[in-house]
Amino acid sequence: MTSETSGAGAPPTTAAAADVSTPTTAPAPARGTRLDPWLSSYADRAHGMRASEIRALFAVANRPEVVSLAGGMPYLEGLPLDVLSEVSKRVIATRGTTALQYGSAQGDETLREQILDVMRMEGIDAHPDDVVVTTGSQQALDLVTRIFVNPGDVVLAEAPSYVGALGAFRAHQADVVHVPIDANGLIPVALEETLGALARAGRRAKLLYTVPNFHNPAGVTLSAERRPQILEIAHRYGVLVLEDNPYGLLGFEGDPLPAMRSLDADGVVYLGSFSKTFAPGYRVGWAVAPHAVREKLVLASESAILCPSNASQLAISAYLATCDWRGQIKAFCELYRERRDAMVGALAEHLPDASWTVPDGGFYTWVQLPPGLDSKAMLPRAVTARVAYVPGTAFYANGAGSDHMRLSFCFPTPERIREGVRRLAGVVAAESELVSLFGVSGQRARDDVQQPGPDVS
Amino acid sequence: MTSETSGAGAPPTTAAAADVSTPTTAPAPARGTRLDPWLSSYADRAHGMRASEIRALFAVANRPEVVSLAGGMPYLEGLPLDVLSEVSKRVIATRGTTALQYGSAQGDETLREQILDVMRMEGIDAHPDDVVVTTGSQQALDLVTRIFVNPGDVVLAEAPSYVGALGAFRAHQADVVHVPIDANGLIPVALEETLGALARAGRRAKLLYTVPNFHNPAGVTLSAERRPQILEIAHRYGVLVLEDNPYGLLGFEGDPLPAMRSLDADGVVYLGSFSKTFAPGYRVGWAVAPHAVREKLVLASESAILCPSNASQLAISAYLATCDWRGQIKAFCELYRERRDAMVGALAEHLPDASWTVPDGGFYTWVQLPPGLDSKAMLPRAVTARVAYVPGTAFYANGAGSDHMRLSFCFPTPERIREGVRRLAGVVAAESELVSLFGVSGQRARDDVQQPGPDVS
Repeated sequence: MTSETSGAGAPPTTAAAADVSTPTTAPAPARGTRLDPWLSSYADRAHGMRASEIRALFAVANRPEVVSLAGGMPYLEGLPLDVLSEVSKRVIATRGTTALQYGSAQGDETLREQILDVMRMEGIDAHPDDVVVTTGSQQALDLVTRIFVNPGDVVLAEAPSYVGALGAFRAHQADVVHVPIDANGLIPVALEETLGALARAGRRAKLLYTVPNFHNPAGVTLSAERRPQILEIAHRYGVLVLEDNPYGLLGFEGDPLPAMRSLDADGVVYLGSFSKTFAPGYRVGWAVAPHAVREKLVLASESAILCPSNASQLAISAYLATCDWRGQIKAFCELYRERRDAMVGALAEHLPDASWTVPDGGFYTWVQLPPGLDSKAMLPRAVTARVAYVPGTAFYANGAGSDHMRLSFCFPTPERIREGVRRLAGVVAAESELVSLFGVSGQRARDDVQQPGPDVS
Repeated sequence: MTSETSGAGAPPTTAAAADVSTPTTAPAPARGTRLDPWLSSYADRAHGMRASEIRALFAVANRPEVVSLAGGMPYLEGLPLDVLSEVSKRVIATRGTTALQYGSAQGDETLREQILDVMRMEGIDAHPDDVVVTTGSQQALDLVTRIFVNPGDVVLAEAPSYVGALGAFRAHQADVVHVPIDANGLIPVALEETLGALARAGRRAKLLYTVPNFHNPAGVTLSAERRPQILEIAHRYGVLVLEDNPYGLLGFEGDPLPAMRSLDADGVVYLGSFSKTFAPGYRVGWAVAPHAVREKLVLASESAILCPSNASQLAISAYLATCDWRGQIKAFCELYRERRDAMVGALAEHLPDASWTVPDGGFYTWVQLPPGLDSKAMLPRAVTARVAYVPGTAFYANGAGSDHMRLSFCFPTPERIREGVRRLAGVVAAESELVSLFGVSGQRARDDVQQPGPDVS
C-alpha cells in the first residue's frame, strides 16, 4: 500500500472531516487519502493486492525489439485460423440464440462430454456431471481456494510454484508453505516431513497444489512411481490434492503419464484447460471434483460469474467435434520440442556457468544462475539489453528464488530464442564481472511476490 | 449443509480413523461423511453456499409446455444472427492471433473506448483507464465485494434486491441490511435512518448496492431528484455506492436519466453490461471505478480469471464498430415495451386482486399477491399449472418477500405472457380459496435465500 498512502500530507476529504461527536452521523469514516479516498474501506484481503514493481518492465518487454523469454503465451500462428473462423461463423449462424444466451453455471453438457475424451488421454475416467467449466483454469484455482481456504489456512505448494496459483492463494489470505521438488517432481519424503512438522505445530494443510506435468516454472515432471506415494501421504493427512494440468498433453516423447486424478477420484480436484492445447482467448478451463465439492464449485462459480460464456464453449465444442484436435496437439508438441531444443542448445553454448532443467514437455526451463547473481536485480539490465525473463522470486510466496529465472520457449521462434539467450549471456557475463569486483548484485530482491501479469505468466 | 450431513450414520473414512495420538500424523482431520469426505475442510464462506430447493422446480419450468415468467433472459431472436456470424468469422480470420490469445487483465483498450460511447448516453464522462472489463457484470459484483467486504461487514441493498448481487454478498459473508424503496426507487429518508441506526450501533456500511434504473426485481426507477440526495447521504457516511445498471438504456419512453456515476466520479463504482442490450453469451460487462479502486479491481480480476476473453471482447468490439447497435437497442425497447404492455394488461384482466409495478423499462414487474398467499409455497402448484415465476423471497437476504413474486416479460411472446398470467390467475384463485377456507398457505416459506440459477435470474 506504500505508494497509495504516500500522499500522507494530503488533506482529509470532506467526509473524513465530518464531526465525529454527532451521534446521528457515521462513526467518522477516515476515508483515506487524496490519492485513495476509499483506503480505509478495503477488506483485509485487498491489502495483499499490490501491483508488481516489475510490471512496468514487462510492458517494455512486450516491444518487438525485445526477445521475451518471459511469457507463457502459446504460439497461435500454428492454428488453422481460416478453419476456425468458419467454425465461429457456423456456431453463431446455426446456434446463435444458444451461443449468445445465458447458460448453466456448470457449463455446456456437450462440451463436458467432450472434455471427458480429452481427459481419457491421461487415464481419467469421469462422468460429465463431475466436470465444472470455468473461465480458464485460473477461475477454477480461485473457486477451489474460495471454498476451502479461510484466512491463515495452510496451502502446500511446490517450491517453486505457478505464479497465478500463488496469486489466487494470496487473494484468499492463505499461508503458503513450500515443499521442495527435484528432477522427478515433488519429493514424497519432503511432503511427509512438512506435513509432520505442521501436525506437530497443531496445524493442518487444506490443499496440496501441484503441477505434476512439465511444471511451471521448473519444467520437471512428477515420476509415475511418486504419484501414488504423494496421494497416499495426502490422504493420510487429510489434504485435498489440487492437480493443475494445463500442459499434460504437450509432452515431447512417449505417452502421457496417468493423471493423479486417475489414481484417486475422491482425493483430487483436477484442473484442465484448453489454453495451452488449443487457445487461451476463449478462456475455457475446467475442474473435475468429488461430487460434494463439485456442487460447491458450481455455486461458487455462479456467485462469481453466473455462468461461463456459451459463445466460447460452443466454439470450442464445435472445434473439438469438427477439427483434428489430436493432430493439432501433435503439431504443437513438434513445434515446442524444436523450441525446447533451441533453448537448451543455446543455454549450453552461451551460459555454461548456469544450470537448467531439460523439460520433456510444456513451455518452460528453470535456470539457476551462477553464484552471486540476482535475477530480479538483473532484470532491468536484461530488458535494456532487449531480452526478458521472469525472475525466480515470482514463483515463491516467501521471497526465495532470486538465484533462478524462468525461461519460456513457447512463443518466440527458435532463431529468436537463440538470439535471446545470446543477449542474456551478455547480461549475465557483465553482471558476473560486477559481482566478482563488488560482491553480490547491488540491488537485493525484496520479498514480495512479483506478478508479471496475465499475458506473461 | 443439512442434506450433506444427513448421512450422519456413515462410517468415517480411513483417514478420519487415523490414530490421533500419533504426533507425527495429522491433527485428526475428521474428514467428513461418506457423502462428503471433505466436509470438515471447507472454508467458513462455503457453508453459506447451498443449492436452492426451488432449483429443481426451475429445471421443470424450462420445459416448453411451461410459460416461464421467471427468467431474466433477453429475447435474442431479435438479433441479426447472419450479420453477427459474419462479424465472428471476420474477427477470427483477421485478428485470430489476438482474439485467441491471452489479453490484459483490464480488458481490450479499443473496447474500453467504445464502452465510453455507450456510457455517454447516460451522461457518464470517463477515461478508458477507468474501465475494467469483466466476465459479465456479475464478476464485477464479485470483485467489488471481494476488495471491500470482510466477513460481517454491512452492505446496504434495496428491499428487494437482485438475487445475483445477494449471492455475491453472501459468498463473501457480508451482512446485508435492506433499505426500503417505493415507486421512485430508494427512499433517501430511509437510507439516512438506516445509516443513522448503524452508526448509533457503532457500525458502518461499506457499500450501498443499488439498481437505479428499471429495478430488478421491482421494476421501479430512482427519480432524478433523489439521485443527488442518495449520493450526498452516502458521501456523508463514507459509503461507496455500487451502481448496477444493466437495463438503463432499455427505457420505454424519454431519454435515459443521468447515471449516478455522472454526478459523482469519486463516490460511485458503476457496473455496466452488454448482456441485456446485446447478448449475455459473451459474458462481457464492465466496472468504472475511482483510480485506486480500479487498480485493485484489476489485480483482483487477475487472481480470479487472469484476463477476460479476448474472443468475446473482440467480437463485441467489432459489433459495436460495424453494426447499428443504437438501432438494435431501440428495437429491443420496442419489443420489451410491447411485452410490458401485454403483461400489465393481462394482470389487470386476470389478477385484479393483486397489485404490481408498471415499469418504464427493463424486464420485470413486481407483483404483490392478495393477502394470505405465499409465493414460494405456491410455486410447485404454479409449475404444475405450467407457469413459473420467481418467488419474492429470492430477493431478500432475510426471508422477507413471500407476499411478492417477480414476473419477467423479456423472453416470452406477448401471447405467451397473456397465457402465463391467465394460468397464474387460476393458481392464485385456487390458492385464495384454500386460504379463505383454512387460513394462510399450508407450507410456509423458509428463510433462506432462493437462487433460481443463472439462466433465470
